[in-house]
Amino acid sequence: MILTVTLNAALDVTYAVDAVTPDTVHRVRSVAERAGGKGVNVARVLHTLGHDVIATGLAGGATGAAIRAGLAGREAFVSIAGESRRTVTVVAGSGATAFHEPGPAVTGAEWAAFRDRFARLATGAAAVVLSGSLPPGLPDDAYAQLVAAAPVPVVLDADGVALLAALPAGPSVIKPNAAELAATTGLGDPLRAAEALRAKGARAVVASLGPGGLLAVTPEGTWRARPAAPIGGNPTGAGDACVAALAAGLDTGLDTGSGTPWPELLHDAAALAAAAVATPVAGEIDLVTYRTCPIDVEELE
Amino acid sequence: MILTVTLNAALDVTYAVDAVTPDTVHRVRSVAERAGGKGVNVARVLHTLGHDVIATGLAGGATGAAIRAGLAGREAFVSIAGESRRTVTVVAGSGATAFHEPGPAVTGAEWAAFRDRFARLATGAAAVVLSGSLPPGLPDDAYAQLVAAAPVPVVLDADGVALLAALPAGPSVIKPNAAELAATTGLGDPLRAAEALRAKGARAVVASLGPGGLLAVTPEGTWRARPAAPIGGNPTGAGDACVAALAAGLDTGLDTGSGTPWPELLHDAAALAAAAVATPVAGEIDLVTYRTCPIDVEELE
Repeated sequence: MILTVTLNAALDVTYAVDAVTPDTVHRVRSVAERAGGKGVNVARVLHTLGHDVIATGLAGGATGAAIRAGLAGREAFVSIAGESRRTVTVVAGSGATAFHEPGPAVTGAEWAAFRDRFARLATGAAAVVLSGSLPPGLPDDAYAQLVAAAPVPVVLDADGVALLAALPAGPSVIKPNAAELAATTGLGDPLRAAEALRAKGARAVVASLGPGGLLAVTPEGTWRARPAAPIGGNPTGAGDACVAALAAGLDTGLDTGSGTPWPELLHDAAALAAAAVATPVAGEIDLVTYRTCPIDVEELE
Repeated sequence: MILTVTLNAALDVTYAVDAVTPDTVHRVRSVAERAGGKGVNVARVLHTLGHDVIATGLAGGATGAAIRAGLAGREAFVSIAGESRRTVTVVAGSGATAFHEPGPAVTGAEWAAFRDRFARLATGAAAVVLSGSLPPGLPDDAYAQLVAAAPVPVVLDADGVALLAALPAGPSVIKPNAAELAATTGLGDPLRAAEALRAKGARAVVASLGPGGLLAVTPEGTWRARPAAPIGGNPTGAGDACVAALAAGLDTGLDTGSGTPWPELLHDAAALAAAAVATPVAGEIDLVTYRTCPIDVEELE
């Protein structure tokens, strides 16, 4: 079983309108809602691929109840008193205008209850995914605590202070994007930045560089993997699909060197990211693209 | 007791952001929620003024529960299976960009249950307010049915087909705004348009013309009432405040000619509308403006 953690889960709401015009009133043509947050999207991709997955995290209020209901029993969220956040994405033609609510305030007691739940769940997991932002009230080293407490390999997809604080705890793989690489290292070159983050304690760094594909800096070597031709579509969720592939790789023993070789895993992760770009909704993948998209994997010196 | 009806109640959500830029992601600084819909706003104004008021209507799902909770026991909504709508208003500086969800589909059985509830509640009321749009599934003559069923005076604030269909049932007062006057009559002159609507069955027409104030066409005469000087602020909710004043006037016997004289009532309605403009939130009024704002009331030939 793969355990995904979403501490700042969201109900993702999508509004369809004709056009977005500031300072006017818009009639919403249709409303769609689904459970969201990066870890939830990862869980959805893993479930689609047939993996046994449990989504945990923090959820509260009517919005938290809607998030949990959307996960159809494959969840073990811890209840909090605060109201979980919503994201509202207004889609007009090919454009998307998004409004992300701040997360709920989490108390010390709620965080302690989550750590207990996490320790129990992680014991039965083959790999753990820690993904997304921290809601207000959690300590900066929240992910560091979870990495340290996990008895199994961990994929961490975080940014800023939460990412930097977690590196000394030794996550198996971190998955920054280009902006996060630059923001956390101050370095403009992605390769240098990835090497700098790995030097702080991550076993491997797999950076998602948008159309530039994936850049992996690992103890076994350095690789770049990308589609042979550009994939058109919606890049939202591509990073989550990449994380899902990495977690599935850890599940097979990657972390110990006994599992899937890196080039094969990166091929899979790049194809899954392309499959996410090919669908309009984060957490969904286009299986035909996943199976057929040509991926170039190149070892770098 | 004054009974307000809100068939398409909403949870009004307000997001504060720095600026609205289409096709970008916005971090929401703060989130505020309150029960809304025109009839709910009317009820809130009446409650603030010390009137005994009950808000009824249709509400469903978690959003419906939040709407009812926000009315703190002064409500008698009928539950429906559909999810009540939300409105999201994104405030950036002095600008407001709004997204209004469509209402929930209402079944024939739910509408029948509401009519029963309405008939019971209206029997104990001094006046009834019918306000706002009809959710999907209700017949065009829904307001006509309620006007016909009400044993007490009715203020109707509706537009389009719902308004036109209700006129033959003889509402005591209708309160169109300038756009609704033009759209329902095809006439550009507000006085002609108001006279045309009154000729279709309303006992009186009080049109709200924004900065132009109120235009009243009644069996007792025709008047215009407006602030002596322009009021700066947010016009949202001014119409609802005007309706609240009219309902309070009916409560005192206006409909029978035994109550508040029209010039006095229109003075009150214009002052209450100004008091709503002076606050940023629909359903709230500035009591100092209400009590002190100079209003000119002029009888027209």
